Amino acid sequence: MMIPLEEARRLVLDACPLLEPGPVPLSEALGCVTAEAVVATEAVPPFANTAMDGYAVRAADTAGATPEAPARLAVVGTLAAGQAPLEPVGPGQAVRIMTGAPLPEGADAVVMVELTREDGAGAVLVTAEVPPGNHIRPAGDDLQAGQEVLPAGTELRPAHLGVLASLGYSQVLVRPRPRVGVLSTGDELVEGGEKLRPGQIRDSNRPTLLALLRDSGCDGVDLGRAKDAEGDIEEALERGLDICDAVITSGGVSVGDYDYTKAVLDRLSEGAMHWLQVAIKPAKPLAFGVVRGTPVFGLPGNPVSSMVSFECFARPALRAMAGHHHLHRPEVMAVADDGLPRRPDGKLHLDRVTAEAGADGRFHIRSVGGQGSHQLLATARANALALVPDGPGIPRGGTVRTLLLHV
Amino acid sequence: MMIPLEEARRLVLDACPLLEPGPVPLSEALGCVTAEAVVATEAVPPFANTAMDGYAVRAADTAGATPEAPARLAVVGTLAAGQAPLEPVGPGQAVRIMTGAPLPEGADAVVMVELTREDGAGAVLVTAEVPPGNHIRPAGDDLQAGQEVLPAGTELRPAHLGVLASLGYSQVLVRPRPRVGVLSTGDELVEGGEKLRPGQIRDSNRPTLLALLRDSGCDGVDLGRAKDAEGDIEEALERGLDICDAVITSGGVSVGDYDYTKAVLDRLSEGAMHWLQVAIKPAKPLAFGVVRGTPVFGLPGNPVSSMVSFECFARPALRAMAGHHHLHRPEVMAVADDGLPRRPDGKLHLDRVTAEAGADGRFHIRSVGGQGSHQLLATARANALALVPDGPGIPRGGTVRTLLLHV
Repeated sequence: MMIPLEEARRLVLDACPLLEPGPVPLSEALGCVTAEAVVATEAVPPFANTAMDGYAVRAADTAGATPEAPARLAVVGTLAAGQAPLEPVGPGQAVRIMTGAPLPEGADAVVMVELTREDGAGAVLVTAEVPPGNHIRPAGDDLQAGQEVLPAGTELRPAHLGVLASLGYSQVLVRPRPRVGVLSTGDELVEGGEKLRPGQIRDSNRPTLLALLRDSGCDGVDLGRAKDAEGDIEEALERGLDICDAVITSGGVSVGDYDYTKAVLDRLSEGAMHWLQVAIKPAKPLAFGVVRGTPVFGLPGNPVSSMVSFECFARPALRAMAGHHHLHRPEVMAVADDGLPRRPDGKLHLDRVTAEAGADGRFHIRSVGGQGSHQLLATARANALALVPDGPGIPRGGTVRTLLLHV
Repeated sequence: MMIPLEEARRLVLDACPLLEPGPVPLSEALGCVTAEAVVATEAVPPFANTAMDGYAVRAADTAGATPEAPARLAVVGTLAAGQAPLEPVGPGQAVRIMTGAPLPEGADAVVMVELTREDGAGAVLVTAEVPPGNHIRPAGDDLQAGQEVLPAGTELRPAHLGVLASLGYSQVLVRPRPRVGVLSTGDELVEGGEKLRPGQIRDSNRPTLLALLRDSGCDGVDLGRAKDAEGDIEEALERGLDICDAVITSGGVSVGDYDYTKAVLDRLSEGAMHWLQVAIKPAKPLAFGVVRGTPVFGLPGNPVSSMVSFECFARPALRAMAGHHHLHRPEVMAVADDGLPRRPDGKLHLDRVTAEAGADGRFHIRSVGGQGSHQLLATARANALALVPDGPGIPRGGTVRTLLLHV
């Protein structure tokens, strides 16, 4: 019995726990999600200051000033950024002032330097009339003390970290990056440059999944390879369950597979594993269950299937655990420039395609060819997945929901 | 004299050197760019194998088989993945075979287990006729020995790393992630939770720029803060030039600024720094030069200006140094749902906007408000930059070139 993608994903998402938050230094918090609202403890900027280099003046003193009839003001001081204002600006006076410097008492406007001429003997000629408030940033112009600046649930981007730094925060309460163990199983697997003996292949799923995890903001933990033996598999899984927030295995979940992984997972989970057949191609088989509080994803063993299954199930679940609201890749209705033919088989097909923004403002996609579930090289050329519904496929120029993996 | 964005960027890109390649372990290579073509040293898969669990047979033996009149074959062995095939399959014989296992000699097809019934006494009933090659992946089906699998200049995505692992590579020759020093200058800057004295503000540019670097695949190096004193600035810059592939400073590049940074950079570069006024808003001032072979970017001090300047100049230049072909953020023609009004001023405006894919297949954008060059919180809400050309702006429903920063 095959179940629809959305139903399988709902089952997974409903079972995954939200990770407990903890404080993280700003330098490590990029991409993490805040676990509480952040309130401004002080105003930014903390004092009125100048947005330009020029002269702090009383606006009234510039009334009627023109290049032909400039206002002449006595320069009573100079203020650089970082200096505390000392002398007030009285009538007929000005203070030379640099961008970011605090506005001295008495002044209510800044004249940019381009509208002034020095006039020897400690005076400046102002060649234009300026209104009160000219080029002044009031205190609290960006953030006011007490203002909520980031709601709980904010995914921290570089500018958010800047905002936190501008408020004096050196750490922030976020949900941690999920630590996710990756285990390969199978007697046929070798790795590295080792010579292949008859029947052996090299393990490509583990490096691919570890890279997908990094790309998804998780910390991948390499649990190695287990032989097709219950003891080996159980030992590696136990290690993963001990130190990780989630564990991903690949292989050993298809109908009729030798059932070492199945037997171990069923025993460790006390029968709580789901062995699903999802109505998608590739990546029909999926094992999922929560073992002692830790989600375990049993992805299919074919390289392309394991990637697609990661995208469909593990990635959104791990993002949910880390507190993200946007669980899925951005989705666009894309134009299939070459068409995406298929045959009805009761499944949603996730075709690997290249997507590119066109001059018409739409994304246009083309199949990468090689849609076999083992053809990893073709998949490597794809930057998107087209969701081709059951039926005859998408005609040339037709549109189709498309997930952008990277653009 | 203001120069157009493209001209300033060309000047920067033409001056930045390509980094020297070196070998990197696969586990560290995600996002790096290959510096030479990668050739398959062996076929993948290395041997013909089965795509399904079932029975390896001679196709001719299944001729005419139906559920009512199955073909009866003697089961002469079992092959799991990873096992070397021993017994050949003779006429009237079959071998039980698991996904990924090598095809035994003599067999030319696989019957999936669902189309068979066991028949006691070491025999199987095949209930359908299958053609030669059924469910068989030939050797080299994914990659053939000698085939170029990745051209030089490939940005390594997770599937590429899987392909390399499947070929036995444990490292790959790539251009390194640029190491980029970030220096803040200014007497007004403090950091962390230190109490502010009059005239002081907290440094937000350094944490923001370090996060932007991480987000852009670079290794950021925190060069700290320098006081407004030539000795301090020179010492920090020298340190950055010694250990980094590029150095970014912020502040001290505007017309009329106190010229400590300028004086030091002009001296260190032997007069080769460019002090540019770019026809964009925000981020008009830009200093750029190559000092002893190392690019130095002097970004404006306002928080939003420094981010926009990073996007316009530093990010594409650093990507070019790392060998990327796609230097820029993905660009779409987006629909301005609310319009983006502006006044003519001879500049291209880079408005901070939120972009979202609509049901019509296009991206729709809205201004985040607060377009002041110091208003970092508003900028933090943006996920795109709209390139609003000089003139009256974009009317509601009009389209505008838009760079997607993250979607």
